[in-house]
Amino acid sequence: MQLARLADEIREGDRVALARGITLVEDDPERAPALLGRLGPPSRSFILGITGPPGTGKSTLVDQLIGSYRRKGLRVGVIAVDPSSPLTGGALLGDRIRMSAHAGDRNVFIRSMASRGWSGGLARAATGAIRLMDASGFDIVLLETVGIGQSDIEVVGISHATLVVLMPGLGDEIQVSKAGLMEVGDVYVVNKSDLEGADPMVVSVLSLFRGTRRSPPVLKVSALSGVGVEELLGAVESVRGRFESGDRELKLKSIRGMIVETARGAALAKFAAVSERGADGLARKVLEGSTSIEAAAAKLAP
Amino acid sequence: MQLARLADEIREGDRVALARGITLVEDDPERAPALLGRLGPPSRSFILGITGPPGTGKSTLVDQLIGSYRRKGLRVGVIAVDPSSPLTGGALLGDRIRMSAHAGDRNVFIRSMASRGWSGGLARAATGAIRLMDASGFDIVLLETVGIGQSDIEVVGISHATLVVLMPGLGDEIQVSKAGLMEVGDVYVVNKSDLEGADPMVVSVLSLFRGTRRSPPVLKVSALSGVGVEELLGAVESVRGRFESGDRELKLKSIRGMIVETARGAALAKFAAVSERGADGLARKVLEGSTSIEAAAAKLAP
Repeated sequence: MQLARLADEIREGDRVALARGITLVEDDPERAPALLGRLGPPSRSFILGITGPPGTGKSTLVDQLIGSYRRKGLRVGVIAVDPSSPLTGGALLGDRIRMSAHAGDRNVFIRSMASRGWSGGLARAATGAIRLMDASGFDIVLLETVGIGQSDIEVVGISHATLVVLMPGLGDEIQVSKAGLMEVGDVYVVNKSDLEGADPMVVSVLSLFRGTRRSPPVLKVSALSGVGVEELLGAVESVRGRFESGDRELKLKSIRGMIVETARGAALAKFAAVSERGADGLARKVLEGSTSIEAAAAKLAP
Repeated sequence: MQLARLADEIREGDRVALARGITLVEDDPERAPALLGRLGPPSRSFILGITGPPGTGKSTLVDQLIGSYRRKGLRVGVIAVDPSSPLTGGALLGDRIRMSAHAGDRNVFIRSMASRGWSGGLARAATGAIRLMDASGFDIVLLETVGIGQSDIEVVGISHATLVVLMPGLGDEIQVSKAGLMEVGDVYVVNKSDLEGADPMVVSVLSLFRGTRRSPPVLKVSALSGVGVEELLGAVESVRGRFESGDRELKLKSIRGMIVETARGAALAKFAAVSERGADGLARKVLEGSTSIEAAAAKLAP
């Protein structure tokens, strides 16, 4: 596959080419830079990160957001980071796409990525996929990740705005991950708001910011019924308004995150590329004293 | 600290210099190669890996082995990889050394290393520490690690021989980790042999090798009382005899492991060294179109 032609097809909005490009950034860290380097700086896509513990209904909320943005006539890309094992991941990811109400919409592109153990590799692949969607003309990229861990914090650095999705009954988990939670969210969502304990949960989230200079919106939503989704969209749109009006700091934040994750990804690729080929011959040379372990290791590590 | 002088002091058997050198390979991956490169190929130390699940009495067994080798007039170094958290690790490691019956013996050097999350980094640090002990004149290096995981398999690659320490009642765990267990051990120990179920445990371990070409010794030991330790030593000494008589394949195996882990460690050090310094300025250049994300990332990743 010629990378120049693939890049052209992606820029022309070809869906098959986009899917191929994302596969390349996922599976081929060595060739990915040659493809991504042809794209120019990210410009079009507003990147909305959506994170939170498992089971809080993020996927349903993402489907609602796709619907809202499609009604505005915007093209929507989705990257869903699925922590399933490589073995079961495939089937689950397929189900996820089939289950979306927007699976047949040509202006919606949903892509799942299996988390492959190393968070750095995931952030690199997600960064590449976002840049490909940007080049392919998507107005919005929804980046869904699970949990409040290191990988989410990395991914949050790439986004222009981040939704933290919670639900009633997560009180203890919120206290434990207090620091992580406080840092990442631009908007906090208490989903499944029809369940008992929604109001105490809102109070609990608000209490995280007591005495600080931050006071992000905390909104009750029922993604399943749609209640509260328009209010949520309003809160996100106020950040997107800054993006659309050319807010330099907002754009710089995301580009900065992309640079850092690309750099980490390149370093990780070197680790993965350390081969044991030739190690036997090098060991013989070390034993004979004709080379050092350091010099031998330098030949294995590119 | 001048590395040339430090290397000289280590070769002269200076304990303080050895401790400093190990700290350097643990904490300063960038300078470590300059120190280790002055040492020449590993030559003197027989490296005995001791691994097994937590709670099987590895530390007590190590203390017994130290005593046995000291009675033969050999100098013994110990590297104990402790998976404790960085917070509690310090105290536990200190206790470990104070609790050894050999804490005051000048011909015994015990060093604990906290597992710092990344197994590759640990294998690199352990490799460096072994090479420093070798240069410092230790006849035996005991390398104690916990569990049968990836990090242990890496560490096993560095050792000339590996003891797998088990105890009665671990039947299910053995079945689960069957593949890992079968690969790594030269000698299998069922420790705490005074407990009920020691004989079935021996049978269970023997059954792992039924129908294979391997039949490593499986020995019942009570490290606490000393019963069975001399028999265990005999099994280890038969491997050490090959080492002392210059068995080339045995020496090559360990050197090969050291090269591979040093290469992986170097690649990991690059990941850790990715700095976010300068990222703001680079992000501005990307936004202005005067550089690409790839070129900017290349400036952050060394």
